[in-house]
Amino acid sequence: MDSPIATFVGGLNGRWRIDSISAPVGSTLREAPRLDIVAGQLAEPPVGSAWLLRGAASNLRYTSRSERAGLAAAQAPLGRAEATRAALIPIRKSGDWWALAQDERRAIFEEQSAHIAVGQRYLPAIARQLRHCRDLGEPFDFLTWFEYAPESEPAFEELLAALRGSAEWRFVDREVDIRLSLDAR
Amino acid sequence: MDSPIATFVGGLNGRWRIDSISAPVGSTLREAPRLDIVAGQLAEPPVGSAWLLRGAASNLRYTSRSERAGLAAAQAPLGRAEATRAALIPIRKSGDWWALAQDERRAIFEEQSAHIAVGQRYLPAIARQLRHCRDLGEPFDFLTWFEYAPESEPAFEELLAALRGSAEWRFVDREVDIRLSLDAR
Repeated sequence: MDSPIATFVGGLNGRWRIDSISAPVGSTLREAPRLDIVAGQLAEPPVGSAWLLRGAASNLRYTSRSERAGLAAAQAPLGRAEATRAALIPIRKSGDWWALAQDERRAIFEEQSAHIAVGQRYLPAIARQLRHCRDLGEPFDFLTWFEYAPESEPAFEELLAALRGSAEWRFVDREVDIRLSLDAR
Repeated sequence: MDSPIATFVGGLNGRWRIDSISAPVGSTLREAPRLDIVAGQLAEPPVGSAWLLRGAASNLRYTSRSERAGLAAAQAPLGRAEATRAALIPIRKSGDWWALAQDERRAIFEEQSAHIAVGQRYLPAIARQLRHCRDLGEPFDFLTWFEYAPESEPAFEELLAALRGSAEWRFVDREVDIRLSLDAR
């Protein structure tokens, strides 16, 4: 069985150059020059790695059938040739968030914060992949990977500002913002 | 940070005696005399272990605020002196289940199958703890642990029969049923 887990390694190797690491909320991660994305888990951290973050691709947790259809009709895949910029945004939510029941979290996530609707506005320019890591005992709960062309960077900043201003984000107690780019070919 | 993961070890040691292992759906697990429940993950399988199953205690995925309040008012804790019988039921659901959106899974889980309402009928006699393992890359998706007094065994069989007859269970493609008891003190 293939593992649903991928490991993001901040270190000396990898296709993506790390341009900046900042921490909008809580403690940051150590600086590193490159990011490598490895399928599965690693028995040992690679030589020179500053941090390893693991996350699992998983089922939808809040998205309804009709919302999913809307996203599927609009979204672009990862790996487009023009998408030479990326962001990896690890976040952790507070114990108060996780203690809420499913209907309470859904109401904050979409009816109050429009998380899905906001993301939809920036499709197909901003491609996105979510991985879950709370159940893995990781320091973060989610790792979200975004990919976009350089000219979509202002749109990406708008998307982040909308999410960070939402009711949902009041439950975020750690957020790191890692910006990346591909070397010119 | 404490790991949310526990490891269930079928082998030579542990407080619980394994009385039987059967497989209502799909392939079974190897026979073993004892079950040990260990906090966290193990670097190496203990000597003589037949299988290790890992699962993470996690947030609610379907239960609403009012359903949770009903459960909380009725349920008993694990570890009651009279609860000398237990069952560990690992299940896996099909790809069709996991491809459903959240509202579709919720509708099958509760509106069609009454999973929460059925469990509630057997409280406080049958205490229960769910762990999730699909995101861990495990062979099962869930490990459910049930504890009850010997006189509640018929009630426990009723509960299982109700769940196994539900619409939700049509998506279960592997289920193992491990029955356990505590040695008399």
